[in-house]
Amino acid sequence: MFAAPPIPAIDAEAAGAARVRQASLTKPPGSLGRLEELATHLAGIQGTAVPEVRRKTVVVAAADHGVAIHGVSAYPPEVTAQMVRNFLAGGAAVNQLARAAGADIVVVDAGVATPVASPKLLDRRRGAGTADFTRGAAMPLSDAERLLEDGVALGKTLDSEIVILGDMGIGNTTAAAALTAALLGLPAEAVTGRGTGVDDDGYTRKVEAVTRAIETNRPDQSDGAAALAALGGFELAFLAGVALGAASRRRCVVLDGFPTSAAVLAASRIEPGVTPYLVASHLSVERGHRAILNELDLEPLLDLRLRLGEGTGGLLAAMLIEAAVQAHAGMATFEEAAVSRGASVGEGGG
Amino acid sequence: MFAAPPIPAIDAEAAGAARVRQASLTKPPGSLGRLEELATHLAGIQGTAVPEVRRKTVVVAAADHGVAIHGVSAYPPEVTAQMVRNFLAGGAAVNQLARAAGADIVVVDAGVATPVASPKLLDRRRGAGTADFTRGAAMPLSDAERLLEDGVALGKTLDSEIVILGDMGIGNTTAAAALTAALLGLPAEAVTGRGTGVDDDGYTRKVEAVTRAIETNRPDQSDGAAALAALGGFELAFLAGVALGAASRRRCVVLDGFPTSAAVLAASRIEPGVTPYLVASHLSVERGHRAILNELDLEPLLDLRLRLGEGTGGLLAAMLIEAAVQAHAGMATFEEAAVSRGASVGEGGG
Repeated sequence: MFAAPPIPAIDAEAAGAARVRQASLTKPPGSLGRLEELATHLAGIQGTAVPEVRRKTVVVAAADHGVAIHGVSAYPPEVTAQMVRNFLAGGAAVNQLARAAGADIVVVDAGVATPVASPKLLDRRRGAGTADFTRGAAMPLSDAERLLEDGVALGKTLDSEIVILGDMGIGNTTAAAALTAALLGLPAEAVTGRGTGVDDDGYTRKVEAVTRAIETNRPDQSDGAAALAALGGFELAFLAGVALGAASRRRCVVLDGFPTSAAVLAASRIEPGVTPYLVASHLSVERGHRAILNELDLEPLLDLRLRLGEGTGGLLAAMLIEAAVQAHAGMATFEEAAVSRGASVGEGGG
Repeated sequence: MFAAPPIPAIDAEAAGAARVRQASLTKPPGSLGRLEELATHLAGIQGTAVPEVRRKTVVVAAADHGVAIHGVSAYPPEVTAQMVRNFLAGGAAVNQLARAAGADIVVVDAGVATPVASPKLLDRRRGAGTADFTRGAAMPLSDAERLLEDGVALGKTLDSEIVILGDMGIGNTTAAAALTAALLGLPAEAVTGRGTGVDDDGYTRKVEAVTRAIETNRPDQSDGAAALAALGGFELAFLAGVALGAASRRRCVVLDGFPTSAAVLAASRIEPGVTPYLVASHLSVERGHRAILNELDLEPLLDLRLRLGEGTGGLLAAMLIEAAVQAHAGMATFEEAAVSRGASVGEGGG
């Protein structure tokens, strides 16, 4: 049986000290808006009034999905392996945005149908794609637990203050919708998106697949591991583990879009202590994403109409978090700069 | 008389070629949302299908405002000069965010009450702050024209693909509100914000000052230079010039908050050809900002409850623009990466 690692509480004292520091910096109090909140959040996560970001890592986990045989995606399943090769060659969006953000990338094969041979790929395969979850569980519980353990191990090991979750897998927004519907008790229609770009027939098949998946597998809403086994994907179970492992070592965990958020929703049912370590990077175009963010009480930083996955939105948010931490640490106080304090002041000193 | 430099039209052919390239890159078409639009926008600005960002510069122009004697800001006017010293010492938010974004900073004295002596400061002073515009013009037209010329000269000279506008000046959201009210024909209440953090009495004084400023100075809505002279600030006239000069050299001009946007609104009345070169970085908390963005048909990239000015929001947006250009230039095409095309595909390959 999988046991989540203990996750420490956020350090309220450090967050309070960061808030005091923010009020002393040469700007009107509150005028950096969410950047101030991010700096305070990171202070609480790291347990220090002046947090730092030396390294950022995006973990891109890939796997195939049995449900893809129902034509729920416009792309054929072989694209998962092709994109893994693209990640390793540096040609995907995640590679370029990681470069822009100065982040490292770890690419993980959690169960791609066609194995990709490369020393740069972390092999945590549990099979050649999940089973079709409209007919039974996506994977045995033991596989989900093993993926959670492997994810926790990676999340603990990463020497990065910011860990960004990224996903790749043809069919995985269907798995994310099934997980979300099951864990939040919502109808399939409410959480199934057209973000996949499937046509009307494809969308109908997708909603049907999610509906049947829930009927076939009725996981306990409080059992995240069982939900991941029944309705997840290999990459989603692995990413749930990464979030738990990273949070257990006081690292900030940045969600990307719908699949990574569904994975972490499941993780939060395993260990609710993970939630205070999360940052929602962006609001995806995918319909079910908002429901998860509401459940986890997260407000996305960006709304750029992204629907790519791979960790791309998370990398953009990581740039904002790092900038927030930089401002918090590097700005002068009113005393240091000999700037007069006002009652408060607005834009441009206005 | 000030004559704006000729601004070339956006290169529609280059933008079209960039759109074609976007469709060939290994991601579902449209899945990078606004990042795709930014890359295409920069292509049109630079006149090449694959634009680049080698350098970014934030121009922070500072000046004092005669209207400040009416108690429209919670900070005393000496803070303008104090903050200029803080910019030069590297202790302000703009310094830290510029560092995070990898941007250069140019600090300009356009008319601070107390001159600051420093070789690092660009001296374009037109006086020790503007006159009180509730009693007459803020400055002679000749000063506004000289500031526009000086700004154009700097905007042309900057060897940066992205020019970010930043402002500092106690009282300048009052000037921005007066300019916006005059140029858009809106009542003072509709464009005067509490973003300055003034209390109820201060806010009442601010609305009164804007109302009186409009009554005293009734600038022609189509005459941007006259509006800047009547209701502007020295820094706002200078920044209007920077925008015109940068656009004339095919550079992307990134707005920050309310004062920089009001300055560029005036610039667009001088030369409407500047507008296609603009990117709106964020939606400020200041009330009048939305009205300007609507008038210029700009959709802000970020909404982080910022109200600082200095170019801080613009620097965050510049990071996103650079990331968009990086993805556009560096990603592999479907052919290069041997990835199968689908009808389309969603998040994480979903």
